[in-house]
Amino acid sequence: MSDVRVTVQRDSEREERVVTTGTTAADLFQGERSVVAARVAGELKDLAYEVADGDAVEPVEITSQDGLDILRHSTAHVMAQAVQELFPEAKLGIGPPIKDGFYYDFDVETPFHPEDLKRIEKKMQEIQKRGQKFARRAVSDDAAREELAEEPYKLELIGLKGSAAEAGEGASAEVGAGELTIYDNLDGKTGELCWKDLCRGPHLPSTRAIPAFKLMRSAAAYWRGSEKNKQLQRIYGTAWPTKDELKAHLEFLAEAEKRDHRKLGAELDLFSVPEDIGSGLAVFHPKGGIIRRVMEDYSRRRHEESGYEFVYTPHATKGKLFEKSGHLDWYADGMYPPMQLDEGVDYYLKPMNCPMHNLIFDARGRSYRELPLRLFEFGTVYRYEKSGVVHGLTRARGFTQDDAHIYCTKEQMADELDATLTFVLDLLRDYGLTDFYLELSTKDPEKFVGSDDVWEEATETLRKVAEKQGLPLVPDPGGAAFYGPKISVQTKDAIGRTWQMSTVQLDFNLPERFDLEYTAADGSKQRPVMIHRALFGSIERFFAVLLEHYAGAFPAWLAPVQATGIPIGDAHVPYLQDFAAQAKAKGLRIEVDASSDRMQKKIRNAQKAKVPFMIIAGDEDVANGAVSFRYRDGSQKNGIPRDAAIAEILDVVERRAQV
Amino acid sequence: MSDVRVTVQRDSEREERVVTTGTTAADLFQGERSVVAARVAGELKDLAYEVADGDAVEPVEITSQDGLDILRHSTAHVMAQAVQELFPEAKLGIGPPIKDGFYYDFDVETPFHPEDLKRIEKKMQEIQKRGQKFARRAVSDDAAREELAEEPYKLELIGLKGSAAEAGEGASAEVGAGELTIYDNLDGKTGELCWKDLCRGPHLPSTRAIPAFKLMRSAAAYWRGSEKNKQLQRIYGTAWPTKDELKAHLEFLAEAEKRDHRKLGAELDLFSVPEDIGSGLAVFHPKGGIIRRVMEDYSRRRHEESGYEFVYTPHATKGKLFEKSGHLDWYADGMYPPMQLDEGVDYYLKPMNCPMHNLIFDARGRSYRELPLRLFEFGTVYRYEKSGVVHGLTRARGFTQDDAHIYCTKEQMADELDATLTFVLDLLRDYGLTDFYLELSTKDPEKFVGSDDVWEEATETLRKVAEKQGLPLVPDPGGAAFYGPKISVQTKDAIGRTWQMSTVQLDFNLPERFDLEYTAADGSKQRPVMIHRALFGSIERFFAVLLEHYAGAFPAWLAPVQATGIPIGDAHVPYLQDFAAQAKAKGLRIEVDASSDRMQKKIRNAQKAKVPFMIIAGDEDVANGAVSFRYRDGSQKNGIPRDAAIAEILDVVERRAQV
Repeated sequence: MSDVRVTVQRDSEREERVVTTGTTAADLFQGERSVVAARVAGELKDLAYEVADGDAVEPVEITSQDGLDILRHSTAHVMAQAVQELFPEAKLGIGPPIKDGFYYDFDVETPFHPEDLKRIEKKMQEIQKRGQKFARRAVSDDAAREELAEEPYKLELIGLKGSAAEAGEGASAEVGAGELTIYDNLDGKTGELCWKDLCRGPHLPSTRAIPAFKLMRSAAAYWRGSEKNKQLQRIYGTAWPTKDELKAHLEFLAEAEKRDHRKLGAELDLFSVPEDIGSGLAVFHPKGGIIRRVMEDYSRRRHEESGYEFVYTPHATKGKLFEKSGHLDWYADGMYPPMQLDEGVDYYLKPMNCPMHNLIFDARGRSYRELPLRLFEFGTVYRYEKSGVVHGLTRARGFTQDDAHIYCTKEQMADELDATLTFVLDLLRDYGLTDFYLELSTKDPEKFVGSDDVWEEATETLRKVAEKQGLPLVPDPGGAAFYGPKISVQTKDAIGRTWQMSTVQLDFNLPERFDLEYTAADGSKQRPVMIHRALFGSIERFFAVLLEHYAGAFPAWLAPVQATGIPIGDAHVPYLQDFAAQAKAKGLRIEVDASSDRMQKKIRNAQKAKVPFMIIAGDEDVANGAVSFRYRDGSQKNGIPRDAAIAEILDVVERRAQV
Repeated sequence: MSDVRVTVQRDSEREERVVTTGTTAADLFQGERSVVAARVAGELKDLAYEVADGDAVEPVEITSQDGLDILRHSTAHVMAQAVQELFPEAKLGIGPPIKDGFYYDFDVETPFHPEDLKRIEKKMQEIQKRGQKFARRAVSDDAAREELAEEPYKLELIGLKGSAAEAGEGASAEVGAGELTIYDNLDGKTGELCWKDLCRGPHLPSTRAIPAFKLMRSAAAYWRGSEKNKQLQRIYGTAWPTKDELKAHLEFLAEAEKRDHRKLGAELDLFSVPEDIGSGLAVFHPKGGIIRRVMEDYSRRRHEESGYEFVYTPHATKGKLFEKSGHLDWYADGMYPPMQLDEGVDYYLKPMNCPMHNLIFDARGRSYRELPLRLFEFGTVYRYEKSGVVHGLTRARGFTQDDAHIYCTKEQMADELDATLTFVLDLLRDYGLTDFYLELSTKDPEKFVGSDDVWEEATETLRKVAEKQGLPLVPDPGGAAFYGPKISVQTKDAIGRTWQMSTVQLDFNLPERFDLEYTAADGSKQRPVMIHRALFGSIERFFAVLLEHYAGAFPAWLAPVQATGIPIGDAHVPYLQDFAAQAKAKGLRIEVDASSDRMQKKIRNAQKAKVPFMIIAGDEDVANGAVSFRYRDGSQKNGIPRDAAIAEILDVVERRAQV
């Protein structure tokens, strides 16, 4: 037994150790229950990996992203074993870890029922308790084919070995470029083979190392993601390092479901996506229309005050424009198919507004005196999304961008970017979002237009501008589009979810393609700097984010109905109607519930509609020329003189405050 | 010679006359130089027509529409003769009268030049002076073919005899259903044949009876209006009963040309129709964007105050929706071609918003308490127009309707129509249009849905509502669409042209097709009445109408720049900038011309930009804390204290007054 020298690496700490041949990663990290795998020379390994001379070995904690992926992937194996124990005819698809959990696809005769999921979950608990070992075993392609002869999908993956991209999303968990491996699930006591799967690993050492999991739901999914292939049944599950984390996750999901904008959109009668129009194409009902209008009007006012100029452009155009901009080269998949007019001319719905704004810039000669020129539009764009990924208003096929393009000189660039980012954050705060971080996407060295110098100067400018905000700045190296670096504003909502909101994007491509120029002070022709800037991104999506953020309880300035008058008895109806008329004259959106419902029912209805102010009036109020407020949280404030009541609501509206 | 009894009919006056055989219409109206033809039993005849026993003969005055058509048609013949005298190889197409004039198409090797038109005009004057007679002659088809062997287009028309519709617009002047006729142009003295044309007539007795004409321009035109046929060269001309009328018409044209919204749109930098986007699809530049926004904002505010609710709907939809609405059956030609998504589903750009509003009505159960429900949208629609008929913003391929659909009970219909029409006229007046008449389009007995009773009641209601306005009411019998009667508002602009503006249209079809219903007070399900109502019709078109109406000199509330500060010297710039800041804070759109131009140039520039208020300041103004106004007409008002100056502009804006 010769000695083996290894380095154990933890964060910045390095420990040189000499161990005997046959020592495993598990031996190195013995007693550290939170370590679930090891990273050796950048590669993830099972704890059963025998360390070799010269290895630098790093522990992988279950709480790290890699650790969570391994936990979830192992849980997926347990689920697949449970499914095949209960449904022996089920054939295996793929089963990768995903955000917060995992899935596995099965070819089964009939879709799974919720009761099936319960049974599978129970069986998984059994397997978890059995303490099965996950054992890695390298196999030749031929041996793998023989062993998995009953698993047609696995055979197909073996055939695709080395072309994981072709095999489809998630399949890289099964086959990579290197040797094939099979993971055996071995009985913890007898060592007997319980189940096996083609898999690259790594895995937890044992099923007993799975602390907490739950199956969520099942859904149909095409084999390898293509509608041309067979439909399989996918079961989704989640797994966590502790039972508390699982509980917190499930509570988060329940809260998110309550806030689901599609659900609230229907409950509050804000919008719908009619089947006759098509998925991803929403109609806004009157109440949703009010919220959207207020959102737009406020944005428009602020843009106007900040020197933006408003333009209008059509939704359809000759393909020629997108040839000029290059979109037909690199964005055609995201576009609707063409419509042929006038015998042979292709027209397209626009997926972006920028080329049209460039035509406006270019409609006449421009002088440096006109710069920065900030063209703004609420421009509705249409993008083709596969029907499977369309999701309510957050991923739609048609949406309206609050889209601006700024044309400025190189000298103006820094100030303009600074002012733009400040403006953007300021405006987002006005809508009630306050928790931000910034992301700086920089050059992909493989794919960019323009000179290195220009990129470097622009990126540095963006970085300075971003740092000046005093917000966390996350680098996204190589994440920039080929035409320029960008800052994106990420925001957390009321339940901690991150949404990408605004982007401030430099563009070194379009000014060239459109040959944009202005006359400088010295009479020379110069190319302007172009900045794309969307604040909401998509009004529909921002609407959905705010709807979920506020769980439908919009602050009064955005609420479709700001106040509902609720008479204690019929006698108080005229008094409230008079009050409402007075409030309306001040521009408030107020209704009086004069229906035959009882008062308690009226309060419940207003509460369900999430109206910020309930204005209650009875004999005493009428006698005193006063009203009572009831807030959404059930608290109440009595005897407010009428004028003071209206002033209070107006104040809350003007301050854009939440009540 | 036996006696012939005829009745001469003038307006309500009838005169019985007994004349000898061989008497012509010319004899009957001898000495009446303004009579150019006769109408006998509804048919137009040459004055050379020999009256027959029992004829009721009516004089056709040159000033009547029929008289003008005859004058212009005869002038077209003169032009064709002149062309063939000058260009013997030219082949004849067709040459009908049109509004205000005539045209004739020719197959020639090279397009006509302006100098050609001058030569042709001169030749026409010669022919006019020659006093050639127009002589009618019936011919058999075969004889006509032989006589016109050299005129291939005429031969084609002979072949199409009886199917004028197929022959194309304008061809009915050549061939009808009856016998073929040829008109010979005979020398006034010698009777010699100078020229001839296949023609139904009638014509003036002589070329000398053409009082005043002018050739306008030439343009390419496809034979029989089809792009598949050969391109001919069309010459347009105009002809009038007096030289004064010709002069007035030419002046009107010059004035209309000055006001042409396409010309003004470019001059004032309001909008353009970029070649890369396509004909009929305009982009609004910042200054046009301001006018459009103010137009929209004001309309929106008034609609809001009048109980309209705002919705938003997408521009594209599955074809299914237009199958349901029936548009794909009867409106497909006006629609853009489909785009196929998701393997086999046809999506269309919407040509109308109504079906989508119906889906919003139908998104949940409706109670009678919610009616009238007035759904409003600035909805951009796309309609396929042939490229030849597209015209600037007035006939476009994409435009935004200020579109509302009102759903009400039958009992509410009369009040609702009344309120709607009053609202519409009131709002149009606010935009500065004041000269209206109404048109009532009633049932086409051949083509309608719904019961006679319903039509009758609705039509009577519309009539009463229209009469109540005290405006001229013009009947348009049979002019209604198949789905319901309508009132349309016609308005005259500053130079007397009539534009169809708003329509208030009842619809008995869509509520059935969408099975729309509401729950009545008694709990029963009822069908609502549906009213389509567009006020501007199309914002783009209304924008163009106002632009032409005001010749670009918009009243201050609509003007993109309401005031321009013009310093007498550089020293006065800061003073004006301070004034401008004060005015801006009050919401005014004001600029200061701080350029290096001289003051007179600045005034000229502001005048060219049609800015309502020029604010001039010099030493005296600065000393007195005052400014001077200069108006667009050149008049001036001096020494106005700053606050009073701002107050005056604000007052003009608020009153929506013209200065």
